[in-house]
Amino acid sequence: MPDPLLLEAFPTPAREPLVIEHVAEEFTSLCPKTGHPDYGTITLRYRPAPPDTAAGQRGCVELKSLKLYYQSFRNEGIFYEAVTDRIRADLTALMSPVWLQVITNWRGRGGIRSAVRAEFGSVPDEFRAR
Amino acid sequence: MPDPLLLEAFPTPAREPLVIEHVAEEFTSLCPKTGHPDYGTITLRYRPAPPDTAAGQRGCVELKSLKLYYQSFRNEGIFYEAVTDRIRADLTALMSPVWLQVITNWRGRGGIRSAVRAEFGSVPDEFRAR
Amino acid sequence: MPDPLLLEAFPTPAREPLVIEHVAEEFTSLCPKTGHPDYGTITLRYRPAPPDTAAGQRGCVELKSLKLYYQSFRNEGIFYEAVTDRIRADLTALMSPVWLQVITNWRGRGGIRSAVRAEFGSVPDEFRAR
Amino acid sequence: MPDPLLLEAFPTPAREPLVIEHVAEEFTSLCPKTGHPDYGTITLRYRPAPPDTAAGQRGCVELKSLKLYYQSFRNEGIFYEAVTDRIRADLTALMSPVWLQVITNWRGRGGIRSAVRAEFGSVPDEFRAR
Amino acid sequence: MPDPLLLEAFPTPAREPLVIEHVAEEFTSLCPKTGHPDYGTITLRYRPAPPDTAAGQRGCVELKSLKLYYQSFRNEGIFYEAVTDRIRADLTALMSPVWLQVITNWRGRGGIRSAVRAEFGSVPDEFRAR
Amino acid sequence: MPDPLLLEAFPTPAREPLVIEHVAEEFTSLCPKTGHPDYGTITLRYRPAPPDTAAGQRGCVELKSLKLYYQSFRNEGIFYEAVTDRIRADLTALMSPVWLQVITNWRGRGGIRSAVRAEFGSVPDEFRAR
Amino acid sequence: MPDPLLLEAFPTPAREPLVIEHVAEEFTSLCPKTGHPDYGTITLRYRPAPPDTAAGQRGCVELKSLKLYYQSFRNEGIFYEAVTDRIRADLTALMSPVWLQVITNWRGRGGIRSAVRAEFGSVPDEFRAR
Amino acid sequence: MPDPLLLEAFPTPAREPLVIEHVAEEFTSLCPKTGHPDYGTITLRYRPAPPDTAAGQRGCVELKSLKLYYQSFRNEGIFYEAVTDRIRADLTALMSPVWLQVITNWRGRGGIRSAVRAEFGSVPDEFRAR
Amino acid sequence: MPDPLLLEAFPTPAREPLVIEHVAEEFTSLCPKTGHPDYGTITLRYRPAPPDTAAGQRGCVELKSLKLYYQSFRNEGIFYEAVTDRIRADLTALMSPVWLQVITNWRGRGGIRSAVRAEFGSVPDEFRAR
Amino acid sequence: MPDPLLLEAFPTPAREPLVIEHVAEEFTSLCPKTGHPDYGTITLRYRPAPPDTAAGQRGCVELKSLKLYYQSFRNEGIFYEAVTDRIRADLTALMSPVWLQVITNWRGRGGIRSAVRAEFGSVPDEFRAR
Repeated sequence: MPDPLLLEAFPTPAREPLVIEHVAEEFTSLCPKTGHPDYGTITLRYRPAPPDTAAGQRGCVELKSLKLYYQSFRNEGIFYEAVTDRIRADLTALMSPVWLQVITNWRGRGGIRSAVRAEFGSVPDEFRAR
Repeated sequence: MPDPLLLEAFPTPAREPLVIEHVAEEFTSLCPKTGHPDYGTITLRYRPAPPDTAAGQRGCVELKSLKLYYQSFRNEGIFYEAVTDRIRADLTALMSPVWLQVITNWRGRGGIRSAVRAEFGSVPDEFRAR
Repeated sequence: MPDPLLLEAFPTPAREPLVIEHVAEEFTSLCPKTGHPDYGTITLRYRPAPPDTAAGQRGCVELKSLKLYYQSFRNEGIFYEAVTDRIRADLTALMSPVWLQVITNWRGRGGIRSAVRAEFGSVPDEFRAR
Repeated sequence: MPDPLLLEAFPTPAREPLVIEHVAEEFTSLCPKTGHPDYGTITLRYRPAPPDTAAGQRGCVELKSLKLYYQSFRNEGIFYEAVTDRIRADLTALMSPVWLQVITNWRGRGGIRSAVRAEFGSVPDEFRAR
Repeated sequence: MPDPLLLEAFPTPAREPLVIEHVAEEFTSLCPKTGHPDYGTITLRYRPAPPDTAAGQRGCVELKSLKLYYQSFRNEGIFYEAVTDRIRADLTALMSPVWLQVITNWRGRGGIRSAVRAEFGSVPDEFRAR
Repeated sequence: MPDPLLLEAFPTPAREPLVIEHVAEEFTSLCPKTGHPDYGTITLRYRPAPPDTAAGQRGCVELKSLKLYYQSFRNEGIFYEAVTDRIRADLTALMSPVWLQVITNWRGRGGIRSAVRAEFGSVPDEFRAR
Repeated sequence: MPDPLLLEAFPTPAREPLVIEHVAEEFTSLCPKTGHPDYGTITLRYRPAPPDTAAGQRGCVELKSLKLYYQSFRNEGIFYEAVTDRIRADLTALMSPVWLQVITNWRGRGGIRSAVRAEFGSVPDEFRAR
Repeated sequence: MPDPLLLEAFPTPAREPLVIEHVAEEFTSLCPKTGHPDYGTITLRYRPAPPDTAAGQRGCVELKSLKLYYQSFRNEGIFYEAVTDRIRADLTALMSPVWLQVITNWRGRGGIRSAVRAEFGSVPDEFRAR
Repeated sequence: MPDPLLLEAFPTPAREPLVIEHVAEEFTSLCPKTGHPDYGTITLRYRPAPPDTAAGQRGCVELKSLKLYYQSFRNEGIFYEAVTDRIRADLTALMSPVWLQVITNWRGRGGIRSAVRAEFGSVPDEFRAR
Repeated sequence: MPDPLLLEAFPTPAREPLVIEHVAEEFTSLCPKTGHPDYGTITLRYRPAPPDTAAGQRGCVELKSLKLYYQSFRNEGIFYEAVTDRIRADLTALMSPVWLQVITNWRGRGGIRSAVRAEFGSVPDEFRAR
């Protein structure tokens, strides 16, 4: 089941602002109604907290731990919207970023493909437009 | 014939704002003038009503019911503009969303392909730009 | 020769605002200097006049009549800029839309491909950006 | 060598504002350091001066003359930045447009491909964003 | 190891503002944790300092020296974020540009591909949106 | 229901051998188990009977009649394999071609997309390989 | 774990030869060494046994059962080669087809993407060449 | 109307065998039933007669004359099959090539796009397979 | 330097013939003349020795060891042809396969991209044709 | 003017057969009739002579010399067919390969793009088919 304890963070590595993006194309979970697998791509974007703050000490999610966290959804029955909200909540709690954006794109069921977007803080327009 | 009673809703599943998109690539209806089939893609985007409101109790359209609703246009003679306006009206009535956008893209007749866009509420710029 | 009398209109079909787009990929006319054929794509976008106005009675161009109107340029010797300006003028006169945009994209002569954009009224930014 | 005398202009052909784009995909010049050929695409966009002005009498560059002008760079040793600046200067001098934009995209040397953008006047945001 | 002394500059070659972009698709460095190679694309965009200023004397990075500088990361164990920040710092120190943007796109490890963006000065919106 | 009487033929129009291909991208029928719509592309290839034979008098299927015949499957519950076999049988009966090939490509149900190929006579290798 | 009992067959539905292809783009299993998920596409092609034979009574695999069978690999630790061989064996046992081909394409681990092909009987050249 | 007198030939320019291909993407003619324009791409491939033969004196079609010949179909009402057969006949008569292949690809009417292939002599397999 | 001792093999895992393909898109070595890096994609295809033979005991190359072997070329100055031949020789020595094919595709130097193909044993036509 | 003396060769570097391909996407020459530039891609494929033969001592064309040889066509007025035949002749004379294939693809003049293929010796089918 989704396990935020798998997530690890490291200190923000630069004094100047960075924007970081991780795109995981191999996400899978289960539909809670039918039990059939869902397949999606998870796009995470965020600006880490400044390095000289408490939040900055855990400003960036470590990549391998993010992968393991995503894998922990593999056998979970969970709706698209809940996946998206959960990832937003867990990563915001971990990193306390300046802003954060999660977009999930799903390959589709019954001829309809879907996307869900959740955000934290003030996401710049140029990322909202993607 | 198009049947909004097929549509079902479920409560908005998150406290934080979400934007939800459903793209149905297999829509078909009939041209009211010639009786020939039209084929299109229906893109629906919306931000559901907040969860702690009356509207939020029926904030999100259920995916399978949306599919069946779209299928109910299959043998209806109806113009592009009317399909678009009808879907906007039926889904707005169902969900009372914060905002909603419907874009229909049609494969074309006589060498001309068409698109129609209808909106409800204040759609953010980044979605209008797509 | 280009014949605006071929154009027919029908009343704006919805109370709520619509944006309508027609893309004709098979446009051809003749170069007035060399007589060689030009090939282009004509993109027309507009927001029709509201239904309860005089203009709204002829708010939308009928699709088949638009096709025949475009075909009337087939053997006309006419520059790219003049094609674009003419279509803007004829369709604006027909429909009196809230706004209208015509973009012509040409396959190219001598290794240079061209585009011309003409507008009427206040075209929203999101359509100008395409 | 680059020869602006090859350029010819014709009067702005419409009272209403137009935006005109010419994309030449087959541009070539020489690297001034190595003598090896460079290959690029030249995108020119501009809004011509109004027709009832002195500038409007030579408001638009004639397409074939533009092609010959571009060909005059074929055996010139010239940097990317200078090509771009030169085309901006020569075409601005020819047409006195309301605004003008030149973007050169180069196929690359040593695994790095480059682009240079130069502008005259107030270029609208939607063209800057391309 | 990354060596900024490899970088060379030349004076800004035009009085009018230019925007310059160099995209290097063949960047490689090493993961500092595993020692495995990382592969990425480095996009550099900047507006050089005006030619009649001290900074303008070294306003533009010379292309071949940029290539050699990038190659100096080949056997360096360094994180994505540090590569991006380092390139920003070294090139800003070299050129003192009006603004500068570095975007690194990485091919991915463990099914997740990443991007990091760093900026100096006031980058125009149209470049942020790419 | 599928109606071969809609099909019309015309005489083979050339003495030299021709190969004719018609690709219909907008085919739809119904799944006989679930009643949900299926969407597919029907590729028909054939070599018509020689013009100086009895079969050659009805050697080629008329394009508009083929379209109407395909539309007659719209509300038929029928499996992929049966659609393919039916089209092969009806068109072979109509035209008595030298050879004929029908390939149906289906957009997929439950994450699996399918194709079915049926042939009559000796189809040349180069068409089998597509 | 992979369960061939999930597979169901139906009789070959046509007297004339058919070739049937099912492409499942959403296959996932686990790497037996690391436990990390593998993602692949499974292409199955076969010619069913003739309808008037014992094998023809179970000549075609039912599509939904195939989907469930593929899903039964979800939490199995199994190598690429074994997945491919297992699917070949289970489907050959089910259907006794004239010929059968299984191709698995894997998204890659450590920068290397892989494919494995297994066959039964005499697969025509045109399918081997794909 | 189609005018083979527009075609010009020049002697085969090489002793060793050549294969020559010309692809014209901007062909247009009229549908003889409806009068609406058809748009297509004409692919011509051939091996010219050897240079030391009578046919070799007119072994290759001149490119500009081919363009004018194709343009002569512009206002002709003519079926797909007849266009293809006519081009085969006219070019074979002009050049007496070793072999020749004409493939016409049509953008489609009523949702069906078509292709017609005609050949003269013994076309090598590798070109038939394209 | 290229180190075949890094390669590990495992027994052929199936009695029925398999064809195995590994595509490594992130190969890099150095040009022995200039010292500049070369970037390429290495495609390896082979049919392993049968399982009940001595060769079959080491019939398949282990994927992670292949990755490390490829990485051992990272700082080697070596020509395209020698890379290709070396990989063929090392893998043939490791596995004694029924047949084996190595294709290297290089991103290019000086505007020319290259490919080299080497084979062992009798490679089936369908793989040669890719 | 085209200068075969620019070409250099090196000995065939492997005992086992290789097939070598060089694709130059940036070729340019001049049309001998109009003087306008032509742009093309030159694909060269060959199997070098065995290393232990006289021809094998000069079995492979050196890549940089090939680039300079191609550049020597830059200001030559020469037809497509002659470019192709000349490259075949010059490279065959240089290397005496087992077989050699030259394919030139041209960007087009007057809406028609062209290709010319010339060969020496017995080119395997799989390369002819590309």
